[in-house]
Amino acid sequence: MTRTYDVAVIGATGSVGEALVQLLEEREFPVATLYLLGSGESAGESLTFRGKSRRVAALEAFDFSQVRLVFFAAGAVVTRGHIEAARAAGCVVIDLSAALPAQQAPRVVADANPEQLSRLAPPYCVTSPSAQSVAVATVLAALRPHIEVQRAVITACMAVSSHGRQGVSELARQTAELLNARALEPRLFDRQIAFNLLAQVDAPDAGGHGALERRLAAELKEVLGSPQLKVSATCIQVPVFYGDSISLSLQCRDAVEVEQVCAVLRTASTLEYVEAGDYPTVVGDAVGQEVVYVGRVRGGQDDPAELNLWIASDNVRKGAASNAVQLGELLIKHYL
Amino acid sequence: MTRTYDVAVIGATGSVGEALVQLLEEREFPVATLYLLGSGESAGESLTFRGKSRRVAALEAFDFSQVRLVFFAAGAVVTRGHIEAARAAGCVVIDLSAALPAQQAPRVVADANPEQLSRLAPPYCVTSPSAQSVAVATVLAALRPHIEVQRAVITACMAVSSHGRQGVSELARQTAELLNARALEPRLFDRQIAFNLLAQVDAPDAGGHGALERRLAAELKEVLGSPQLKVSATCIQVPVFYGDSISLSLQCRDAVEVEQVCAVLRTASTLEYVEAGDYPTVVGDAVGQEVVYVGRVRGGQDDPAELNLWIASDNVRKGAASNAVQLGELLIKHYL
Ligand SMILES: NC(=O)c1ccc[n+]([C@@H]2O[C@H](COP(=O)([O-])OP(=O)(O)OC[C@H]3O[C@@H](n4cnc5c(N)ncnc54)[C@H](OP(=O)(O)O)[C@@H]3O)[C@@H](O)[C@H]2O)c1
Ligand SMILES: NC(=O)c1ccc[n+]([C@@H]2O[C@H](COP(=O)([O-])OP(=O)(O)OC[C@H]3O[C@@H](n4cnc5c(N)ncnc54)[C@H](OP(=O)(O)O)[C@@H]3O)[C@@H](O)[C@H]2O)c1
Repeated sequence: MTRTYDVAVIGATGSVGEALVQLLEEREFPVATLYLLGSGESAGESLTFRGKSRRVAALEAFDFSQVRLVFFAAGAVVTRGHIEAARAAGCVVIDLSAALPAQQAPRVVADANPEQLSRLAPPYCVTSPSAQSVAVATVLAALRPHIEVQRAVITACMAVSSHGRQGVSELARQTAELLNARALEPRLFDRQIAFNLLAQVDAPDAGGHGALERRLAAELKEVLGSPQLKVSATCIQVPVFYGDSISLSLQCRDAVEVEQVCAVLRTASTLEYVEAGDYPTVVGDAVGQEVVYVGRVRGGQDDPAELNLWIASDNVRKGAASNAVQLGELLIKHYL
Repeated sequence: MTRTYDVAVIGATGSVGEALVQLLEEREFPVATLYLLGSGESAGESLTFRGKSRRVAALEAFDFSQVRLVFFAAGAVVTRGHIEAARAAGCVVIDLSAALPAQQAPRVVADANPEQLSRLAPPYCVTSPSAQSVAVATVLAALRPHIEVQRAVITACMAVSSHGRQGVSELARQTAELLNARALEPRLFDRQIAFNLLAQVDAPDAGGHGALERRLAAELKEVLGSPQLKVSATCIQVPVFYGDSISLSLQCRDAVEVEQVCAVLRTASTLEYVEAGDYPTVVGDAVGQEVVYVGRVRGGQDDPAELNLWIASDNVRKGAASNAVQLGELLIKHYL
């Protein structure tokens, strides 16, 4: 008989929470009892898990000693407010909100630096990085044994679901208003997102970089174990519901053998490689999948050490939920 | 009395043609008689110029000896089919379709390399480069006296109007179908463009680069007079009607003084600089304007010689029509 664990999903009613619950079922995660938690507002709602309806409870009243493993997927404020209680109760914590510094909760991408889990000490606390970091790190990790990347220039075109359920409904609302020729008042984003691209996804700091752009650079260096890697990151908001599209230009130490790179990507189990001529997109390809799609692999026009790629990845399912569940599986398999 | 010229606009019923006619009026281009030309299909339609309705005639039957100046805005096939007749009639040709090699019709961005016009010989034939080249070259030309750029990594997010009127109606049609939950059959693009991003805008060559990506690199080198400039170009199709959004990451020879760069951009008459914190977008800012918008100017996170910028520019009005009309004005002023 396999050992089973009592598990809590905090933010179960959100986009990521719902995907977490689905994946715990689909991947046959060894759950004994599943606790679904939300804010007071959603308490009483239910979700289906293994064919049974389960009520969502209010996090405020939750007793963490009931569970062994907790997924925090309700934003950094909620994580910060409850993580001490979870740790005091001896829970294994997988945080999706990046609420804690890397020293306290290292960033781990299951398909890139799973070995980092061995450096954790009980009761175990780990961060699932941003969806964009998961996507890019998965590709770079597959290439790592073959090419030495010195600089990564990233333009991450982010879906509105990176703002959770609210982002999805705001794009739908704005689009409908515009198609019906009604005046538009943006509610969630600072301006029209329908049929428009926004140059930033959060407020820039004094250096002009957004928080997610800083995270992307820091997380990639940490996950790939390459502090010397140079990263230029631009995160933009696009009128797409689900799935991130990422334009990635790499500068490598040596001339790149594009055919060899394609062969490596084609055989990587963590990736879905799309042959030249065709290309992956979020709609129809990446969304709903648990692998990162990569295509448009090409060298430089004037630089033999350049490599360009296009990545499509489901920010909610792959970038958040799937990586978090994989981390849970690895912790259970090797350390609990 | 200013001298006036008889002018023909080929492709007058298209997106770019319509913008050309508007700008010839708004900028008080010294037009004597304006000839509007289209395919047989649109012959008989009319457009308004200086308050009067003018009929569109069929290009097939047009006698080029009636005009001094011709704007070719009907695609490369049409240009190739009629340019010899235009030149034989002694017409000055401004081509927006890139039908001719650079040796025969140099690429000129009015706000970047206007001095190249002096190298032309009568009857004068010049190419207005792609809208993306116009936008990027305008920004780089403003910076040229101050920083030496060694590499430009470009992700150009292109509006559907880069496919002309058809592109615009296809995005509108697809969006309406989806919002009404009807099954979608893509007609113009090779798949769903509504709420999706396509990784390429034309068929890639053996090296994986699309035609426009090749043009962007070649045109920038030519226009900026920097054959040694390295260019990584990725052109993607986004669900936006009008206006290109461009993520630009530069590597410079020396450390970049970001404040100085901002000061230069702020005072450039060819640009609209948007201060840090705010940022330009195509909807609401660039569309309908004759200047290139630039914002999100920031250095590197880990490289003092890196400079990142965000560009928003109206592909039809600024990138195509306005640059072409400016070229006409310069030719008239200095050479005709
Ligand atoms: N979306 C992505 O692409 C993505 C990717 C990577 C990581 N993440 C992270 O995943 C987390 C969830 O994001 P999301 O996209 O799922 O957001 P979302 O759809 O807005 O859902 C937010 C969830 O948080 C819950 N919540 C809010 N306030 C709470 C409180 N005071 N106590 C308990 N629960 C509370 C909500 O519960 P109620 O329904 O009860 O209000 C809801 O379940 C965030 O930390 C985010 O940074 C998201
Ligand atoms: N759209 C952009 O962003 C952009 C930017 C830079 C350059 N350009 C260039 O500008 C040109 C026009 O683009 P567009 O976006 O305006 O396209 P469009 O909206 O599709 O218009 C095409 C125009 O070409 C005319 N045409 C087609 N076949 C013809 C023929 N056999 N003889 C005469 N006229 C013919 C059409 O006339 P009918 O109505 O009679 O068919 C129409 O006026 C292209 O060369 C394009 O490469 C476009």
